[in-house]
Amino acid sequence: MTDVNPATLWGRTIVSELAAGGLEHVCIAPGSRSTPLTAAFAAHEDVTVHSHLDERSAGFYALGRGRRTSEPTALVCTSGTAAANVHPAVIEADTGRVPLLVLTADRPAELADSGANQTIDQTKLYGDSVRWYAQLPEPVPNERTLASVRTTVARALGRASDTPSGPVHLNCPFAKPLDPDPTAEPIPREQLDPLLEQSRNGPYVSTTNGTVSTDSDTVDSLVDALEDADRPLFVAGPADPEALSNHATWRDPLVELAESIGAPILADPLSAVRFGPGASSPTVCGGYDAYVDALPDPDCVVRIGASPTSKRLRRALKDANCRQFVVDPAGSWREATFSATDLVVAAPSTLLPELATRVGARQASTSDGDWLGHFTDAERTVDEAVDRQRSADALASSPVEGSVLATVLERAPDPSTVFVSNSMPIRDADLFGRPREASLTVLANRGASGIDGIVSTALGAGSATDDPLTLVTGDLAFYHDSNGLLALSRCPVDATIVLVHNDGGGIFHKLPIEAHDPPFTAQFKTPHGLDFEPFGSVYGFDYVSADPETFERTYANAVSTDGTTVVAVHFDAASSHRRRETLLDTVTSRVSE
Amino acid sequence: MTDVNPATLWGRTIVSELAAGGLEHVCIAPGSRSTPLTAAFAAHEDVTVHSHLDERSAGFYALGRGRRTSEPTALVCTSGTAAANVHPAVIEADTGRVPLLVLTADRPAELADSGANQTIDQTKLYGDSVRWYAQLPEPVPNERTLASVRTTVARALGRASDTPSGPVHLNCPFAKPLDPDPTAEPIPREQLDPLLEQSRNGPYVSTTNGTVSTDSDTVDSLVDALEDADRPLFVAGPADPEALSNHATWRDPLVELAESIGAPILADPLSAVRFGPGASSPTVCGGYDAYVDALPDPDCVVRIGASPTSKRLRRALKDANCRQFVVDPAGSWREATFSATDLVVAAPSTLLPELATRVGARQASTSDGDWLGHFTDAERTVDEAVDRQRSADALASSPVEGSVLATVLERAPDPSTVFVSNSMPIRDADLFGRPREASLTVLANRGASGIDGIVSTALGAGSATDDPLTLVTGDLAFYHDSNGLLALSRCPVDATIVLVHNDGGGIFHKLPIEAHDPPFTAQFKTPHGLDFEPFGSVYGFDYVSADPETFERTYANAVSTDGTTVVAVHFDAASSHRRRETLLDTVTSRVSE
Repeated sequence: MTDVNPATLWGRTIVSELAAGGLEHVCIAPGSRSTPLTAAFAAHEDVTVHSHLDERSAGFYALGRGRRTSEPTALVCTSGTAAANVHPAVIEADTGRVPLLVLTADRPAELADSGANQTIDQTKLYGDSVRWYAQLPEPVPNERTLASVRTTVARALGRASDTPSGPVHLNCPFAKPLDPDPTAEPIPREQLDPLLEQSRNGPYVSTTNGTVSTDSDTVDSLVDALEDADRPLFVAGPADPEALSNHATWRDPLVELAESIGAPILADPLSAVRFGPGASSPTVCGGYDAYVDALPDPDCVVRIGASPTSKRLRRALKDANCRQFVVDPAGSWREATFSATDLVVAAPSTLLPELATRVGARQASTSDGDWLGHFTDAERTVDEAVDRQRSADALASSPVEGSVLATVLERAPDPSTVFVSNSMPIRDADLFGRPREASLTVLANRGASGIDGIVSTALGAGSATDDPLTLVTGDLAFYHDSNGLLALSRCPVDATIVLVHNDGGGIFHKLPIEAHDPPFTAQFKTPHGLDFEPFGSVYGFDYVSADPETFERTYANAVSTDGTTVVAVHFDAASSHRRRETLLDTVTSRVSE
Repeated sequence: MTDVNPATLWGRTIVSELAAGGLEHVCIAPGSRSTPLTAAFAAHEDVTVHSHLDERSAGFYALGRGRRTSEPTALVCTSGTAAANVHPAVIEADTGRVPLLVLTADRPAELADSGANQTIDQTKLYGDSVRWYAQLPEPVPNERTLASVRTTVARALGRASDTPSGPVHLNCPFAKPLDPDPTAEPIPREQLDPLLEQSRNGPYVSTTNGTVSTDSDTVDSLVDALEDADRPLFVAGPADPEALSNHATWRDPLVELAESIGAPILADPLSAVRFGPGASSPTVCGGYDAYVDALPDPDCVVRIGASPTSKRLRRALKDANCRQFVVDPAGSWREATFSATDLVVAAPSTLLPELATRVGARQASTSDGDWLGHFTDAERTVDEAVDRQRSADALASSPVEGSVLATVLERAPDPSTVFVSNSMPIRDADLFGRPREASLTVLANRGASGIDGIVSTALGAGSATDDPLTLVTGDLAFYHDSNGLLALSRCPVDATIVLVHNDGGGIFHKLPIEAHDPPFTAQFKTPHGLDFEPFGSVYGFDYVSADPETFERTYANAVSTDGTTVVAVHFDAASSHRRRETLLDTVTSRVSE
């Protein structure tokens, strides 16, 4: 290294330690105070820079990468409100357990609360939403100080991906000069040389993460409970990124276990179980949102993953009033009806193989012979109802938005990544997405379930894999993060974006406020009349409209076309909602018979 | 009131107390958890609802109203990341002293940290950036609890506009039912009646705010210092909203005082002094950014308002090394060179009239007779240089971006509101905006100086007045808050938007990083190639392009046309920067002569 000033040394050290620790991607929004970090990232050959102009979108894009890969992506932004724009993504990373490393540049301490420009208090800016907050020391040519920076950076990377993975915030104050001019206040050679000698061939500190397993007594009690149960049930909620990435370690054992004891697996679309190898097992159920309260109650429930998307399922589990194990590697409480009886702190990757080995295959005689049969019958009923609905759509006689989700999840390429927006599309994915033996990685922002940052999260996820990417989004979410569309031209990602356009907040039709108009239309439904087609020429994508009856063909064309296509399908939210309710009622009454 | 459930009673009480306390406007983004607030606001005839779909833009729009009026605007959003999207506006409200009342809906306490959907920890979500945080009690039919809500709401409104005004955060948990259905768990009549009897004819609690004045010893020392000085100087930095709204109380006394002692007033474009009655006084200077370091140092400085936009001025004040009073009603330290000698805690509205009365008119003989003359001469030099530059622009031989600001600030209707974006346009407004006897309210987000939320802040400001609105923005800021353009169709506001389009971050040409490419172009300048014309058909505005030489006419046409027009003027940032530097050098050397 030639002569460097302290800020440049700091930037290069931080980046080289991150790269040595395995970090490969960073999202950067332009700014002055962050120059030492930006310059060092841009110069590092092992790190790919994704450049963004809106920090909110940058945060969600980085989040999307972490959600898809379970590896932390770094984010660099400048001081001031720029850092606050990342707050929504940090909250989703926290609640969704997504590794994310936020590096905010800051002014030196001497400028705090001084009236200096663009200077705010960035201390613990994200409150308790981060796994770890650290303030880096300001650049000084001092061996211990620099060693602390190297160590802190390594710890930050480790902490972001430890259980539960999540966001880490490093606040990085820099004084001028910020640029890498070697003649601008360089560190004297006799001070610089020992600092450079700290570099090791690899990370200064290596961190590894543990895997959480439970004690044998707890495993025994689970084994006993499952073996004793007449109506055992597995619930696979949305998978954490770590469980998603290591699904090979626990999905087969789960299905094997379920088959051996005749237990249905109610598999959330985000569970990594509804789609993929094993999904054609008769135990894997995807239509429960339509029938779960019409079937007998289970007498033993084992839940993995987060709280399921289906509200009917959550209520049914509460009403079952039985032994209910919640398995979570982080020991969090993930069911808000407070009806679970046992919290088991274990990773699916350790627990499920052990259970699969230990639980004996059930004798048909000892169990309720119809138990799994109830579910397989009910699944067929849902299949038929959804198929009938889609045929009706094809005649344009009564389109429902959910048919779009059914088609996408049936037709998305194998393998591919499908990102589903809040709030209505993910519920429709849950109801209409039939289990499928295909490597679909289905993702959503269900940590905090916001409609913000959807486009960027999806594109970030897509950028992290060679899989084709499909995003299914409502019009409000599409508008909310339309800035994220800029990544199509600035970052290495293409997508097929399915825009379910019902001109406003269709989900509000599900709520009692629908009966009160005003204020329903003006303040809840909020029709905006936006036609997004012109965005195509701004951000560089093809925009095509499809009717419900032409959607399947249009989607297939879009998927097979290079570049990005937005396929817009217009619906009347109120009528779609009514027909969806009718479909649910039909299935429920048939299953009840 | 007919039968109501607790959440509805809470919502109506909160809103009626706010309205009784004088609140007239609320920005609302749709959401379910916030239903009790939204329904109550929508039904209240004395409050105007501004409906937004992106909470970030909603926050800045509300901020813009407060910046323009110094009255708090309320903002309602739902739980989860929605609330985090308001964080940037809250920070700007804090640092820019803008009254703002944020009402975030929240889940009831029983759902905290339970895995419940869309549930995050909203406690003190904005950290120390708010003047006051309060968690409202959950709705219960209890007299003292409801009285506490009435009191808290009144206090929140008062605190938002007390000195220094700023953001207040009320976190409002609600349990279902959320809608105003009178049959859904109504409060029994015998409990409801005493609760309703709490209502008074007017606010439950009236709050008034104080005015900060200083003691007579301090006034004496200021009077002595000004009378003793040979080269007294006033610096009027960006005005707080309160000082802006009551400028009539202190601006005339300031100019009168300056004239009587022959002191220049270096008037920031945001000071409420550079534009308006009195601006043609020879004491009012606007071109100092070009010459201040070429003139003799002052020997006594009195500063009001925030730290000035001009970095050269800030440096010159440091170098002057003289008695320097910083006057601030909130007692904050507002100069980051740490060269001030006296912090005077007083409002301009109390201090300046007193000083004007007490300071004796200077005898020419006792002062440096050329002192004010140096400045008036230098101002003429700047005038000439800017005029020459604008003539050159008209020939398209060497356009600089600042000419656009010169034209807007010279030609904006009288009266009107002119909002100027960060980062480069406000600096150009400072250098190129000549003092003018016209009621221009010139505003910018100079609290934290972000490029976020610019469109929304401007439109919010415009919505708060009958004045015509002009926004001058760079392309990055325009992109960053393009969602804010939706307010053009959803809220009662039109604008003339001048888009200084230099395809990226022109301001980075001012920084040393410019010499390092890579990473300069890809990571700092960040050219994006965006053509915003198609946004016109999405958001409903006319889009016209102008050359520097046709800009004046195009701007005049746009201003006189109903509806919103975006006037885009394209520049080469690098060449504009060089010519700006040349202009500065020319003025400096002429003034030095």
